[in-house]
Amino acid sequence: MERVQSELDRRKPGQSSITTQRKESDTVKILSGVFEGKTLGSPIGFIIENSDAKSKDYDHLKDVYRPSHADFTYDAKYGVRDHRGGGRSSARETACRVVAGAVARQYLEKFGIDVWGYVSSVGEIELNANYQSIDKTQIHSSIVRCPDKEVADRMIQFIEEIRKQGDTVGGTVSCVIQGLPAGIGEPVFDKLNADLAKAMVSINAVKAFELGSGVSASRMLGSDHNDQFSALGKTLSNNSGGIQGGISNGEDITMKVTFKPVATIMRDQDTINSKGEEMVATGKGRHDPCVVPRAVPIVEAMCLLTIADHYLRQKAIG
Amino acid sequence: MERVQSELDRRKPGQSSITTQRKESDTVKILSGVFEGKTLGSPIGFIIENSDAKSKDYDHLKDVYRPSHADFTYDAKYGVRDHRGGGRSSARETACRVVAGAVARQYLEKFGIDVWGYVSSVGEIELNANYQSIDKTQIHSSIVRCPDKEVADRMIQFIEEIRKQGDTVGGTVSCVIQGLPAGIGEPVFDKLNADLAKAMVSINAVKAFELGSGVSASRMLGSDHNDQFSALGKTLSNNSGGIQGGISNGEDITMKVTFKPVATIMRDQDTINSKGEEMVATGKGRHDPCVVPRAVPIVEAMCLLTIADHYLRQKAIG
Amino acid sequence: MERVQSELDRRKPGQSSITTQRKESDTVKILSGVFEGKTLGSPIGFIIENSDAKSKDYDHLKDVYRPSHADFTYDAKYGVRDHRGGGRSSARETACRVVAGAVARQYLEKFGIDVWGYVSSVGEIELNANYQSIDKTQIHSSIVRCPDKEVADRMIQFIEEIRKQGDTVGGTVSCVIQGLPAGIGEPVFDKLNADLAKAMVSINAVKAFELGSGVSASRMLGSDHNDQFSALGKTLSNNSGGIQGGISNGEDITMKVTFKPVATIMRDQDTINSKGEEMVATGKGRHDPCVVPRAVPIVEAMCLLTIADHYLRQKAIG
Amino acid sequence: MERVQSELDRRKPGQSSITTQRKESDTVKILSGVFEGKTLGSPIGFIIENSDAKSKDYDHLKDVYRPSHADFTYDAKYGVRDHRGGGRSSARETACRVVAGAVARQYLEKFGIDVWGYVSSVGEIELNANYQSIDKTQIHSSIVRCPDKEVADRMIQFIEEIRKQGDTVGGTVSCVIQGLPAGIGEPVFDKLNADLAKAMVSINAVKAFELGSGVSASRMLGSDHNDQFSALGKTLSNNSGGIQGGISNGEDITMKVTFKPVATIMRDQDTINSKGEEMVATGKGRHDPCVVPRAVPIVEAMCLLTIADHYLRQKAIG
Repeated sequence: MERVQSELDRRKPGQSSITTQRKESDTVKILSGVFEGKTLGSPIGFIIENSDAKSKDYDHLKDVYRPSHADFTYDAKYGVRDHRGGGRSSARETACRVVAGAVARQYLEKFGIDVWGYVSSVGEIELNANYQSIDKTQIHSSIVRCPDKEVADRMIQFIEEIRKQGDTVGGTVSCVIQGLPAGIGEPVFDKLNADLAKAMVSINAVKAFELGSGVSASRMLGSDHNDQFSALGKTLSNNSGGIQGGISNGEDITMKVTFKPVATIMRDQDTINSKGEEMVATGKGRHDPCVVPRAVPIVEAMCLLTIADHYLRQKAIG
Repeated sequence: MERVQSELDRRKPGQSSITTQRKESDTVKILSGVFEGKTLGSPIGFIIENSDAKSKDYDHLKDVYRPSHADFTYDAKYGVRDHRGGGRSSARETACRVVAGAVARQYLEKFGIDVWGYVSSVGEIELNANYQSIDKTQIHSSIVRCPDKEVADRMIQFIEEIRKQGDTVGGTVSCVIQGLPAGIGEPVFDKLNADLAKAMVSINAVKAFELGSGVSASRMLGSDHNDQFSALGKTLSNNSGGIQGGISNGEDITMKVTFKPVATIMRDQDTINSKGEEMVATGKGRHDPCVVPRAVPIVEAMCLLTIADHYLRQKAIG
Repeated sequence: MERVQSELDRRKPGQSSITTQRKESDTVKILSGVFEGKTLGSPIGFIIENSDAKSKDYDHLKDVYRPSHADFTYDAKYGVRDHRGGGRSSARETACRVVAGAVARQYLEKFGIDVWGYVSSVGEIELNANYQSIDKTQIHSSIVRCPDKEVADRMIQFIEEIRKQGDTVGGTVSCVIQGLPAGIGEPVFDKLNADLAKAMVSINAVKAFELGSGVSASRMLGSDHNDQFSALGKTLSNNSGGIQGGISNGEDITMKVTFKPVATIMRDQDTINSKGEEMVATGKGRHDPCVVPRAVPIVEAMCLLTIADHYLRQKAIG
Repeated sequence: MERVQSELDRRKPGQSSITTQRKESDTVKILSGVFEGKTLGSPIGFIIENSDAKSKDYDHLKDVYRPSHADFTYDAKYGVRDHRGGGRSSARETACRVVAGAVARQYLEKFGIDVWGYVSSVGEIELNANYQSIDKTQIHSSIVRCPDKEVADRMIQFIEEIRKQGDTVGGTVSCVIQGLPAGIGEPVFDKLNADLAKAMVSINAVKAFELGSGVSASRMLGSDHNDQFSALGKTLSNNSGGIQGGISNGEDITMKVTFKPVATIMRDQDTINSKGEEMVATGKGRHDPCVVPRAVPIVEAMCLLTIADHYLRQKAIG
């Protein structure tokens, strides 16, 4: 279970100058499903207790609807809400996904399947490099999770500036799945690409999902976009992003995920409360100026879980 | 059931000079679940028989793996394949989605919920108009489903040129959901945005899904991206695209869906067959040079089905 | 597909003097999912058209709530009902289960798994024989599906008497699953016994499900009921009915299913209509005086489907 | 949450002379989903920690396959097993069901729906009373959960004798659902009766499920079994047990559930270990001589959960 904890540490708050300063230790405690270091086949129950929750931090939010938060929609849906920490809409929920993904990773690596992501843009600063040229070992040596040192430095500098202004900024995470054999996925109802899309867009703050050629596909011609076979199961290009007709084709699966800027900014914002009265949401608390560095392990985890599900499905019929 | 058929007619092949010339009548025949014009609560079974299938059209494809088609991945998954017409990976499968969407539309419109889409780009030709300025009645008066006549004419001309060259081109469909009340969706496992993403990316040839601000969110600051409340349940901007924390906020839900160029081009392409032997895939058959005009009702149908599901869920607990 | 049809013929009406005289040919037509005699992995669509439906037979039932039928409950649930032939509550629905079971049978027999049932009682007439002493080949040589000729003859005679009186009678079907290895099933949420119970009780007219020792277990002591191991995976007795903790133990799975007498009797019965007015339901139509002979292939089909599902699940993790 | 705890106390061990003497306090601690005494709509997470687990009690079981336990089947399925306390096959798992049922009860009672069970037999000792004549207040004044004092006393005496012999005995629990309106359930795939059967047979040690007339239906004639309407939605008899065609008819739903004798007896039993070697399973530990008294709240809980699910489903379409 050391690997589960180390995976979780990649996501934890307070790990660098460009993340939130909340100091949660994020220690995972396994409750069930693991015995003498092995999974038992039964559900793996675990708990990650809050170590640095300051309920007081949220007292001022009791009746406020913060702009672009889920405060209002939760009230609209349920008619009752736990205002402390955003409740279930808090990105803290994704810690559980990272734990589950860490288990899936240990399963998938037995079959030579690897998943890795990196920050490919922060605001206007983009990494212009093909993923195949990336040195994976450099990703996590950078606090911004961008493998190109020069670009990473500019990203870090920009995030620090933005933070001083009490503002936040968006970005993108790119992710690659390697070693997945051809034939994994489903043809109509749970296409592998569709399930990856759902997995990614389910992550807090995600606004767009692109597979392979992504949004650029709309401007391309078929004669350019088509991936010619070079050999059985190998293609010269990979605009498809590794999936055809909902099923993996044995090429790398490549995707890009867009994150909006964090909604909690350290500035006062005009807003309303639950009675519709105008008021000011003050920018208190300790939040990330940019989520993408901490989002890398979350994106990976959701890929790992999606791939593990589909891999198991195929094993049943294979 | 007339409305079901008319919805299906919007998708059918052979409807204009810029779509495939296959002349399928696409007549839906209801088998069960409807009695004296009313749904019974039981499953609605229906069949759309092929009227213009020419199996001969596909004889030359028996062992060929067409580039960027699902021929290879189906063989990899199942080890057996019906080569006639792409089998289940054929976009013809989406006709069923349009029928189901037509039923969902009749349910949702009782609650004042409307869904409508349009072509927002073909290749490099883009419609630069806010959806709020669009005259919906103009969408279907255009064979390319673009509501701006000048832009539509350029799109049509471009598609016709591309077709003459035996090539194909990508494009985008934008879609809007209006009238959905706040509070529809789920907070974690089936977020409304995640389910919409899955629904859209499940459509053949889709490469990207964007909600609200979409890919542009990565370049924005929080102070610009946040949607300020103007009144209870109303915001001044709509970068969120109508969803917060997986739940609708009562604003219009806006999305953009990118389609790649159709893989079947009317040119010879180098490829391989099921034995790995090099060969040439000849460009026969009758295919669309650009799918987006016929994709509009499909995008709408998938929205309608997703919204109907979530609406029913909320009714259970509301 | 010949085997699918022959399985279906075991269930069809009009096959003997003790079943309904409706002469439906029950011909299954495959619509999809099978190509050149092999399943494709995609859904197998099929249709069994009514050949002897006489809508007139049901005209007198338009507003009547027949005693112990689903007429009233369908109206209560849906507020609208197709009164012709019982609609979806007709046991005719089970023909589809038999078709699906026939496909599952062909899959399971590759692994040496067999499922077979027989009539073990009609009214008070019981077959007092351990299933292990039964000659399976004798089951279907009897129109009442009871493998003991002497008992079968008494059952047939009794059913014919009952029919002359315009009445109906209940009975039981016993079923055995053989060749299933140990380790199939789930420990909590989808226990194999629980799924078999659901499958059996979902069949029209079933009132009770018993596994292994069944209702007699309530009167037994643990020292008698416990199945001692004779060897690894073999036990001396089988009160457990082949399942422990939701998971198969490699012994035969044995069960007994109780069917109530058919509700449609050929006598006039006092009842009410949809306005609550008293009236008489006349005993018209062509119905079975006892369902158990035709229920044997249905019980088998539901076992086959349940086992195939669980077998595939285990293959995924095995 | 007091009501959740009190429901759980009805199931807890050590509550009387005829139950196991393990003294688990079974205190439920809510982790999530409840705020200021109200459910939030999000999952209700809770934990019941073991207070009296004595791992030593199970050391002698490490490699033994106890007769009629799940030791062997878990090994067959997973190839790995936590031998302490039966692991997940322990009836202790049902404590969670009782907690969940207690929440469902609070929801359903708002609509006037009540669920109550009682012990109707222990070994050969049966309560011969129609449920309508039962004084519900007497059920829980009896440690054996049988509302007739004279019968209860005989049951208690018999259980104590059996325990002295180191043996166990089976029994039955009867359960009634009252106040459920007509129209709840599904017509084919999730029939209310089928879901109740699955729910009941999923409880540890259950061998049979009977609805309404149950196994006696096999011996009845249709003219006797049919329930004549006395008024709209009211019938003179209730052999149907309150469900027709998978859907409730507004009458009381009545069922009977058979429990086998507990497999753990306080006697030595011949058995084998995981290597197939013969050995003796010694009768240590603290177990129930008869489970039915403690099973009453479990049966009720599974009914409550099943009914709540179906009630919510119907609300969605109603």
